[in-house]
Amino acid sequence: MTDSGASRRERKERTRQAILDAALGIADEQSLAALSLRQVTREVGIVPTAFYRHFASIDELGLALVDQSFASLREMLRDVRRSSSELTGVIKGSVDVLVQHVHERREHFRFVARERVSGPPAVRQAIRHELELVERELATDLARLPHADRWSSDDLRIMANLIVTLMVSTAEAIVAAPPERPDVEREVVRTAVAQLRMVVVGALQWESR
Amino acid sequence: MTDSGASRRERKERTRQAILDAALGIADEQSLAALSLRQVTREVGIVPTAFYRHFASIDELGLALVDQSFASLREMLRDVRRSSSELTGVIKGSVDVLVQHVHERREHFRFVARERVSGPPAVRQAIRHELELVERELATDLARLPHADRWSSDDLRIMANLIVTLMVSTAEAIVAAPPERPDVEREVVRTAVAQLRMVVVGALQWESR
Repeated sequence: MTDSGASRRERKERTRQAILDAALGIADEQSLAALSLRQVTREVGIVPTAFYRHFASIDELGLALVDQSFASLREMLRDVRRSSSELTGVIKGSVDVLVQHVHERREHFRFVARERVSGPPAVRQAIRHELELVERELATDLARLPHADRWSSDDLRIMANLIVTLMVSTAEAIVAAPPERPDVEREVVRTAVAQLRMVVVGALQWESR
Repeated sequence: MTDSGASRRERKERTRQAILDAALGIADEQSLAALSLRQVTREVGIVPTAFYRHFASIDELGLALVDQSFASLREMLRDVRRSSSELTGVIKGSVDVLVQHVHERREHFRFVARERVSGPPAVRQAIRHELELVERELATDLARLPHADRWSSDDLRIMANLIVTLMVSTAEAIVAAPPERPDVEREVVRTAVAQLRMVVVGALQWESR
């Protein structure tokens, strides 16, 4: 039986995705740094050496997972921008969309929360870099707000960093909330909305020197 | 040779501390969840079973490390309260004291940063509880500020939570900064001071409904 190039590529892509999914599932319980190639390949049902047809190392697998996780985050941020142009609406909308995406992509958010602090250096750096990109895009959005001319570009960056810090911490709190306690999650959401309002009220009073 | 009760207690205390220090050293590289009792006791130079004279489990060892880490954090916060009563002074002072303590107790801060997200459930919960205590103390301090009568106790709590989130994130960024790059740390500090000012400016404009 001959194997066309197209179906070979398809199968290769399927195996690659199966490896990524298996790693994400295992990384839910332990850090990527402790993940063994043997564990992943056993889960997928391929021989250990077959791993290298897809990734050069566990680090490279980690970087691919960072890519996938942030692709969904960027998609989420586009949703928020589309959702509303009025400030209070954007705040509530952002938190709602964040909650929804954390629910849909729980493993991605858990992966990022964990590896951001305890992952291999290359993975930690990739996550830092992705968060910086998000921050820069947010600073550009903030620059379009009514009073933005009062802020220096340095202040815009600092404000965007504060909002991203708050969003990361909110996502981590939602992931950590026990599924059987919807009241805990509601409280996290309520707190996040109030905090974003405080920051924005602060920002509107803020004048760069 | 007879062994007095006092010196036996002293030796027991020394071994207990040696176990804690060894675990903290190893936990710098890997999560507590992956830490084996055998690794710790080998490092200390005692037989594995001797571990149980000091701790019932790795979890209990983790809880003792949380206690030690937050004892130094609480000490830090007392320093800040002593340092200044004027608002801008308190902000700059808080960040300076945080930086100094992160330098002095780097392993404790690394331990908390890592285990907060990826530690065993009991350890994660203990860290969350300690941060809540810090938050409550901070809310009490905020209630003494000049305009505090305009804030509800719920807003005071939400504001304290925002400031603690910012401080945790700053401590994590300082720990993550490469020691050979003092400029990165300076930038983290400058950003934290500006963000705390933004939050406080926001708070002073904020009125609870």
